[in-house]
Amino acid sequence: MIIVMKPNAAPQSIQAVVSYIEGNGLSVHLSRGEEVTIIGIVGDKSRLSAENLTVYKDVDRIMPVTESYKLANKKFHPEPTSVKVGCTVIGPDNLTVMAGPCAVETEDQLMTIARAVKESGATILRGGAYKPRTSPYSFQGLEEEGLRYMQEAARETGLATICEVVSTEAIEAAVKYVDMIQIGARNMQNFILLKEAGRSGLPVLLKRGLCATVEEWLNAAEYIMSEGNESVVLCERGIRTFETATRNTLDISAVPVMKERTHLPIIVDPSHSTGSYKYVPSMAKAAVACGADGLMIEVHNDPAHAMSDGPQSLTFAKFDKLTRELQPFCDIVGRAFRR
Amino acid sequence: MIIVMKPNAAPQSIQAVVSYIEGNGLSVHLSRGEEVTIIGIVGDKSRLSAENLTVYKDVDRIMPVTESYKLANKKFHPEPTSVKVGCTVIGPDNLTVMAGPCAVETEDQLMTIARAVKESGATILRGGAYKPRTSPYSFQGLEEEGLRYMQEAARETGLATICEVVSTEAIEAAVKYVDMIQIGARNMQNFILLKEAGRSGLPVLLKRGLCATVEEWLNAAEYIMSEGNESVVLCERGIRTFETATRNTLDISAVPVMKERTHLPIIVDPSHSTGSYKYVPSMAKAAVACGADGLMIEVHNDPAHAMSDGPQSLTFAKFDKLTRELQPFCDIVGRAFRR
Amino acid sequence: MIIVMKPNAAPQSIQAVVSYIEGNGLSVHLSRGEEVTIIGIVGDKSRLSAENLTVYKDVDRIMPVTESYKLANKKFHPEPTSVKVGCTVIGPDNLTVMAGPCAVETEDQLMTIARAVKESGATILRGGAYKPRTSPYSFQGLEEEGLRYMQEAARETGLATICEVVSTEAIEAAVKYVDMIQIGARNMQNFILLKEAGRSGLPVLLKRGLCATVEEWLNAAEYIMSEGNESVVLCERGIRTFETATRNTLDISAVPVMKERTHLPIIVDPSHSTGSYKYVPSMAKAAVACGADGLMIEVHNDPAHAMSDGPQSLTFAKFDKLTRELQPFCDIVGRAFRR
Amino acid sequence: MIIVMKPNAAPQSIQAVVSYIEGNGLSVHLSRGEEVTIIGIVGDKSRLSAENLTVYKDVDRIMPVTESYKLANKKFHPEPTSVKVGCTVIGPDNLTVMAGPCAVETEDQLMTIARAVKESGATILRGGAYKPRTSPYSFQGLEEEGLRYMQEAARETGLATICEVVSTEAIEAAVKYVDMIQIGARNMQNFILLKEAGRSGLPVLLKRGLCATVEEWLNAAEYIMSEGNESVVLCERGIRTFETATRNTLDISAVPVMKERTHLPIIVDPSHSTGSYKYVPSMAKAAVACGADGLMIEVHNDPAHAMSDGPQSLTFAKFDKLTRELQPFCDIVGRAFRR
Repeated sequence: MIIVMKPNAAPQSIQAVVSYIEGNGLSVHLSRGEEVTIIGIVGDKSRLSAENLTVYKDVDRIMPVTESYKLANKKFHPEPTSVKVGCTVIGPDNLTVMAGPCAVETEDQLMTIARAVKESGATILRGGAYKPRTSPYSFQGLEEEGLRYMQEAARETGLATICEVVSTEAIEAAVKYVDMIQIGARNMQNFILLKEAGRSGLPVLLKRGLCATVEEWLNAAEYIMSEGNESVVLCERGIRTFETATRNTLDISAVPVMKERTHLPIIVDPSHSTGSYKYVPSMAKAAVACGADGLMIEVHNDPAHAMSDGPQSLTFAKFDKLTRELQPFCDIVGRAFRR
Repeated sequence: MIIVMKPNAAPQSIQAVVSYIEGNGLSVHLSRGEEVTIIGIVGDKSRLSAENLTVYKDVDRIMPVTESYKLANKKFHPEPTSVKVGCTVIGPDNLTVMAGPCAVETEDQLMTIARAVKESGATILRGGAYKPRTSPYSFQGLEEEGLRYMQEAARETGLATICEVVSTEAIEAAVKYVDMIQIGARNMQNFILLKEAGRSGLPVLLKRGLCATVEEWLNAAEYIMSEGNESVVLCERGIRTFETATRNTLDISAVPVMKERTHLPIIVDPSHSTGSYKYVPSMAKAAVACGADGLMIEVHNDPAHAMSDGPQSLTFAKFDKLTRELQPFCDIVGRAFRR
Repeated sequence: MIIVMKPNAAPQSIQAVVSYIEGNGLSVHLSRGEEVTIIGIVGDKSRLSAENLTVYKDVDRIMPVTESYKLANKKFHPEPTSVKVGCTVIGPDNLTVMAGPCAVETEDQLMTIARAVKESGATILRGGAYKPRTSPYSFQGLEEEGLRYMQEAARETGLATICEVVSTEAIEAAVKYVDMIQIGARNMQNFILLKEAGRSGLPVLLKRGLCATVEEWLNAAEYIMSEGNESVVLCERGIRTFETATRNTLDISAVPVMKERTHLPIIVDPSHSTGSYKYVPSMAKAAVACGADGLMIEVHNDPAHAMSDGPQSLTFAKFDKLTRELQPFCDIVGRAFRR
Repeated sequence: MIIVMKPNAAPQSIQAVVSYIEGNGLSVHLSRGEEVTIIGIVGDKSRLSAENLTVYKDVDRIMPVTESYKLANKKFHPEPTSVKVGCTVIGPDNLTVMAGPCAVETEDQLMTIARAVKESGATILRGGAYKPRTSPYSFQGLEEEGLRYMQEAARETGLATICEVVSTEAIEAAVKYVDMIQIGARNMQNFILLKEAGRSGLPVLLKRGLCATVEEWLNAAEYIMSEGNESVVLCERGIRTFETATRNTLDISAVPVMKERTHLPIIVDPSHSTGSYKYVPSMAKAAVACGADGLMIEVHNDPAHAMSDGPQSLTFAKFDKLTRELQPFCDIVGRAFRR
């Protein structure tokens, strides 16, 4: 922490800040510039709430100089992490494609989709059984029944499976049926859920909140990891901005930013970020080109009749065309992907 | 729902859309303009996912014409709602002031603050026992012990009490000790929690999410109300924008916007929205002047040593000065407030 | 400037940064903490582009500690500035109300409006003669003819006048006819125009850009002031956010923030920020309550037939009602305003 | 335009709207749904300001159904446009790389950079001679002298040239020396400048404003085109959001969105959008992968001593490595690019 004093701060004001810091068992390092005096704090900063110093006289600003996340921080763990999900691995050597319907609707539907996405190269089947919907009057998911269908589809196809969880009960059910759980954007700062996901033992896909900064997102990962679970994968799925031409704005630069800050894998969801099937293929290619470890794509056998997110779902034919087109990009960036 | 077709849409494209709608048991109303054809849907729209129509050929856009929230909607409930909390009432006749520390720290601290805020005109004591913090390494609250202190302070002072809840367990505990529960910004779309809050029987203060639109916020209220709980109060607490001069950006226009769209009371939190005690008094006055039903203000006996949000907390003296200054504003807008 | 080095930065990396700074004729102040080393720059920072240091090895971040604006900065000019416009003064003792049509349409229209707003307490007549419109096919203003009508209306009513300028030619014309010029939101960083406004000799109303930070806005004021013109008034008119319930989001906290950072007066435009006449009165009251020095309000004799911004214009009756209601707020905050 | 009436709108309210529209020489199409009545306007809408109808009683909302831009609209011009700049062509068959320093500093510097970027495959040399800087105390560019250096570099290397213009004078000078002019982000809605750029006869690169929607951006292009200049190229350079990990947020989805809405070419600027040389290569690859027609990249012989934007500039070695890596991506997407 650095405390920047106002120009011409009174000596007693500076002394008051120093006393506060020293009174908390820390020491200070004073730097008197021509314009301002800067006070650096030396020692274990967790022992004081330095932000409180803004209420002291003549204090201009408090500036943090270290990140609050440790386990997720690349500075202390420089090698990239690989996360095992069923028989597949998410990490620097592969391009992992997760695909499936937004919501699990029926057993037949899911099985049909599972077979199709597998044939086109997906290794993880996605499907929502607990749907967080903006309106209470929208379809909320099949819940445990949906999870059973996921397990069935996994048995039949050999795909690994992932399902979003929204509560303790959902996590308890998911542990029985699927290989990976997902924390959705709206729950990214549901810290209770993050801790429970951490304790579940399953690998966790952590979607970025709609207005979460990179810093907050990594702190959310830290919540999961601080419970002893290091199998965390990040998923960029668009942030909320003023632009309405797309459902959200895909923050594609989050991929290289995360590659610099954390050792955790990061994948991209071009479906939710754009909200339209028309933009999914180009955004998927952009993601692979810039270094993403994987993709999460919504695929539906009949988008016009999907119970959720039809407009952003690819048909089987469009998904197959996309993965065929992705192959050469994977070759260039040196990631294994086999259709 | 209105479906806008592209210019020169083929007759078969229009027919396909019409067939889809009629196949769902609804009827259509066609409007052929010079430039575009528009298809209106007549009947109970909950029977189809109209957004899916964007995948049809020659469809340009889908536009909703009615709101998805009903119980919270002023169109169907024009009279303003008053919400009883302990012996106080939040509604159009009063200015309700909720005040207290961000986090309950000790019994003594809470009692001291409770007495001070009561003397300055507050009628509801706020205090966090379950703290959702960005970092897992920050202070997370006293939990049930904190709630007991709240109850103690209520007995001693006669103040009503409010506490944030973050889980089912927190709601179950809160029901035993406090008069109102709060859903925080980060949990505004934690739909499981919203439903449980709805079933708790306690009045609920619903804070706006950092990037929630007015529409999503009202839909979140609808989740609570659809469980049979009509005692919902909205709280504007700042949204996330590009501006960093304040912690968040207080969307003060949400007050008149909500007065137009819903019958639920709306209060303003000038502490979290600005993040600085220096801006709290002016924003509190602005809120009263433009029609807010109340204020939620953080007050601390010793902000420099607060365990959470010190920089935005008012001292007793500053809070007392503020409520004294608020009195004439309340008189002008015709709301009862007695110091 | 402070340079924060990465944890475990190599001694040669630190030395390289020090050499670069010293090579520019400045000196450094090193602070070695337990986690990171921090390098403070001592001396006249305008002699180097410190941001370039981010390309040096082991540099983590560069943090500015002083503001780039000087003339507008309250630190160096603590007393509030009053700006004289015609016979009226914008500053801490008054509440100045500027009112009039978005666009000057005809001489008759303007004269009618001028008389009406004067009667209701306005002292400055606003009216657009050069309209920056999103589409080239929208009405672009009467240009110099409009300015002549403004002058005519001023002669007749005794009101001072203000008009937006969008080019050198517009400034040259404005100097002949009106008392104050306005730089609109879209031109807030049109630095050529800012300098010319500075040289015009007329007081300047500087509207905030739609996505301008407080810092950028003050730097824009600095452009005008650095040409020798200290008569600058700031105008908050809403920023662009994700919320679409209002045209823009009125950043009301910009009022106290500016009161802390600059000595220049600040007024609020509730018409453009909300985009709807329905929200203008409540936002005007909020602005006065929190310390604004004035208001700019769109008033039209016949909003339904206005050539621009009809939806946000007040009728004469609504404007008169509003100023009557504003009077007691002005009395409380101690500002002169006479209807 | 569609006018949506409130539920239970009075018949006289509906009649008033109809009369207003018919009074402007247009006709209406009424659609009475179960919940609401919708009024469509038939005829040439430029004859009325339909937005004004929001001031009519019982009107709920006005919704536009057609875009305001015509010349830039793909609906009326389905074939992609190619823009000739010097001897190079920006369009669907090539990947055009523009590279060079943020600011032209000296003749030597520019010549050195010009030779280097040409060798690495760039065909257009960028260089700023008129710099719009946030602070009036920052370096503002060499102006006409800088343009002469650009011309000199073009003669020597055979590169085409582009330079930002900020005023009429700058355009007049640019016409004499360079092949293409650029309208920068801060001037995207400086409509006077747009019109003058349209009349200049030179091809125009139109950068997106920091908070401009896709719609506003296309309307800005329309300003240029409506002056008879169809040689307009769009440039996505990042938008302003809440995220501060990058200087701006690259809205990569603007590439496919623009490909759907307009026939104009679109290029991407990974330098300004990220603000850091570290993120430029990955974003450049993402842009090529998703269909951009070109790239604008800042390259400097000595970023640590650049007078502007050093942190985001590539060294010669890094730029050369990047273009070598881009080659296979160009091959996949079928665009000519030769190093």
